[in-house]
Amino acid sequence: MIVDTLIHAGWIITVEPPFDTVKDHSLVIHDGRIIDLLPTRQAKQCYQGTVVENLQNHVLLPGLINSHTHAAMSLMRGIADDLPLMDWLQNHIWPLEHQWMSEAFVKDGTDLAIAEMLRGGTTCFNDMYFFPNIAAQQAQQAGIRATLGLIVIDFPTVWAKDSDEYLSKGLTLTEQLRDTELCNTAFAPHAPYTVSDAPLQKIAAYAQELKRPVHIHIHETAHEIDQAVEQTGKRPLQRLQELGLVNSLLVAVHATQLTDAEISLLADAGATIVHCPESNLKLASGFCPVAKCLDAGVNVALGTDGAASNNDLDMFGEMRTAALIGKAVANDASAVSAMTALRMATINGAKALGLADETGSLRIGKAADVIAVDLSQLETQPLYCPVSQLVYAASRQQVTDVWVAGRRLLHNRQLTTLNLAELQEKIAVWQQRLAEK
Amino acid sequence: MIVDTLIHAGWIITVEPPFDTVKDHSLVIHDGRIIDLLPTRQAKQCYQGTVVENLQNHVLLPGLINSHTHAAMSLMRGIADDLPLMDWLQNHIWPLEHQWMSEAFVKDGTDLAIAEMLRGGTTCFNDMYFFPNIAAQQAQQAGIRATLGLIVIDFPTVWAKDSDEYLSKGLTLTEQLRDTELCNTAFAPHAPYTVSDAPLQKIAAYAQELKRPVHIHIHETAHEIDQAVEQTGKRPLQRLQELGLVNSLLVAVHATQLTDAEISLLADAGATIVHCPESNLKLASGFCPVAKCLDAGVNVALGTDGAASNNDLDMFGEMRTAALIGKAVANDASAVSAMTALRMATINGAKALGLADETGSLRIGKAADVIAVDLSQLETQPLYCPVSQLVYAASRQQVTDVWVAGRRLLHNRQLTTLNLAELQEKIAVWQQRLAEK
Repeated sequence: MIVDTLIHAGWIITVEPPFDTVKDHSLVIHDGRIIDLLPTRQAKQCYQGTVVENLQNHVLLPGLINSHTHAAMSLMRGIADDLPLMDWLQNHIWPLEHQWMSEAFVKDGTDLAIAEMLRGGTTCFNDMYFFPNIAAQQAQQAGIRATLGLIVIDFPTVWAKDSDEYLSKGLTLTEQLRDTELCNTAFAPHAPYTVSDAPLQKIAAYAQELKRPVHIHIHETAHEIDQAVEQTGKRPLQRLQELGLVNSLLVAVHATQLTDAEISLLADAGATIVHCPESNLKLASGFCPVAKCLDAGVNVALGTDGAASNNDLDMFGEMRTAALIGKAVANDASAVSAMTALRMATINGAKALGLADETGSLRIGKAADVIAVDLSQLETQPLYCPVSQLVYAASRQQVTDVWVAGRRLLHNRQLTTLNLAELQEKIAVWQQRLAEK
Repeated sequence: MIVDTLIHAGWIITVEPPFDTVKDHSLVIHDGRIIDLLPTRQAKQCYQGTVVENLQNHVLLPGLINSHTHAAMSLMRGIADDLPLMDWLQNHIWPLEHQWMSEAFVKDGTDLAIAEMLRGGTTCFNDMYFFPNIAAQQAQQAGIRATLGLIVIDFPTVWAKDSDEYLSKGLTLTEQLRDTELCNTAFAPHAPYTVSDAPLQKIAAYAQELKRPVHIHIHETAHEIDQAVEQTGKRPLQRLQELGLVNSLLVAVHATQLTDAEISLLADAGATIVHCPESNLKLASGFCPVAKCLDAGVNVALGTDGAASNNDLDMFGEMRTAALIGKAVANDASAVSAMTALRMATINGAKALGLADETGSLRIGKAADVIAVDLSQLETQPLYCPVSQLVYAASRQQVTDVWVAGRRLLHNRQLTTLNLAELQEKIAVWQQRLAEK
């Protein structure tokens, strides 16, 4: 049989049970989908590829899913560091956004983020930012998979004047993206402390009707909890529950402050926690009890947060940090194993976004969202266990090739759908503008 | 004036007070030393370089100092992960070492480590392992700076049969290295729980006489403290103090368990703590209270530990992790700033090793231990603050050039003193042997 792409790989990690790494296997891609995965010797007998790749030094794995980011904020990478969350937001980020937010900012910032993510093996991202229509357009042009957050926040911005306008613009975009292959939407109320009850109730109803995730920052810091208890008498998660938002559509970002009862609540509801370890550490927000959440049965995915508080969109770094900090917080070196971190960065993200039948693992029938990582470099030698090397030793620069829905977006480290030189020029202009503050 | 090397750089970070990053400056190197640092416009008038480098997209900074590692253990990278310290040591690492330890193991393992360190911008390492004579030989051949730990441990190995032999071999090596430029030694009793009082007392005396550092794992885990208190009635640091080891020569590695009194003791003594955040996290050993120690005036340096428990020798990753975890542990996002992390990875390491007049910052008169990092890559754009990008966003793959004592050991990412292909072949042989366990 003649197929579009045939990849012979040194190792393949499917991230499907039984979670074994298979050696000398091949992945067969046709019409954007994985149609077979079998020993290379057999693959060479059964298939002829229009494109054939011999990647004997490489491991193939599902593309990584960045389950929480603010893509366009990449333009503010490193502009204000070593500051607490509220100081950072109120005195640096929000004033800059107020001054500069525009379609052009989101267009160029999202392109920068997409370029960085593709070069680092991320094939899908869950975004939350203004002008999600522009982010969707850039994702589609670049060919990356994305869930666009339909932001809602109590104060007016250039994107919308009030919660009704935020919501109606969001619903329009959801409709526009309905039949597209790579992009869809999630409701994205910013946080309990920035969105009031009325819009949250509307979002709960729309989310159920449209079966879309609800992507929200929650329990990020102890301060957030204290303030909420003072103002409402309730912890934020309790308030969300009363508003009908704690269910399998909930994508709860950060969650560094959780009681055992709250962990059970999230587990029983089938909700997702998106763990953003580097952002939580950098802003000294607290420690998400990841091992405890996983043990309780919560779906825990992984996100970088925006590049303004990380300061990168590196899911390899994030996997490593998640595994390392997960052990230390659990006081158990066997907690959050390398394979667990990899699942958080792939299939658990797909589940969070309602995309588990489409991406997040290498299973026959799923879209071919695949990355190849060269393990022959000195830094990942010797090689006893590919999963261990990926999580604890490899860097994202070892990602050589990336396919999304069978289309090759990174080819031997070269981006195929984004013009790097043009992008660099645009970033330089933004750098000059933003540095004028 | 005609000089050996003239480097015109986009930015230079001297890591000297006032800690400002200077723009468009040049570094002048002659006879292995930094002889000037001045604006590029002036440099072009005053100096002619035999070699001239135009690195407008790069930042120059002092080479990084890895203040605690077990270089040769790189051959065991990833062989046993997700295990607690004592299980990892007793059931995996120590049996493998018992079976395979030899001059050849240390030779090839140290070469692997040196190659990885040079490619990642590390110009000096503080080693602790068997056959330090072999490690010294490999460091000298490669041209990297190293302090070789004269290991002492209560049990016999192929390197020495008892503490007297460990010590006498160590003293011989110290003598042999006396007049060499790049290598010297430190006493390296493994840990309080593996070295008894008599050899520790001898080490205390020799260290004072020879003015060499005493490099020791200490207070790595709560278990270590509990066991010591049970067996001796004392916390290990108290025991070291009584044995005369707590002074300015002490290089105390890990120190995740410290009372306020112990922090004061270390500060008053002028001792160094070597913080190894990734190893501490991975083995769930505990959290070193870095900000508190720095505030108390302790010299805190940074180490990767061995690649068997990290799993890399990446000082860029280690700086990032140190800054991130330092904030979270201090519950203060302004703690352990990017510049603080960079100081820990450079000048504080030099102080620990008694090399502060020789390396660790870019000061006129010091050896030219210098690295160049390309910040023009997408992942470090836009660029508002070079120090912030180095610590929070750059990867070690952006290190393009490395000089040690004025000799260029990495040239546009190519190693000049190590044969990579030969090394890879040797590693492959070790991989086969060790995997047979």
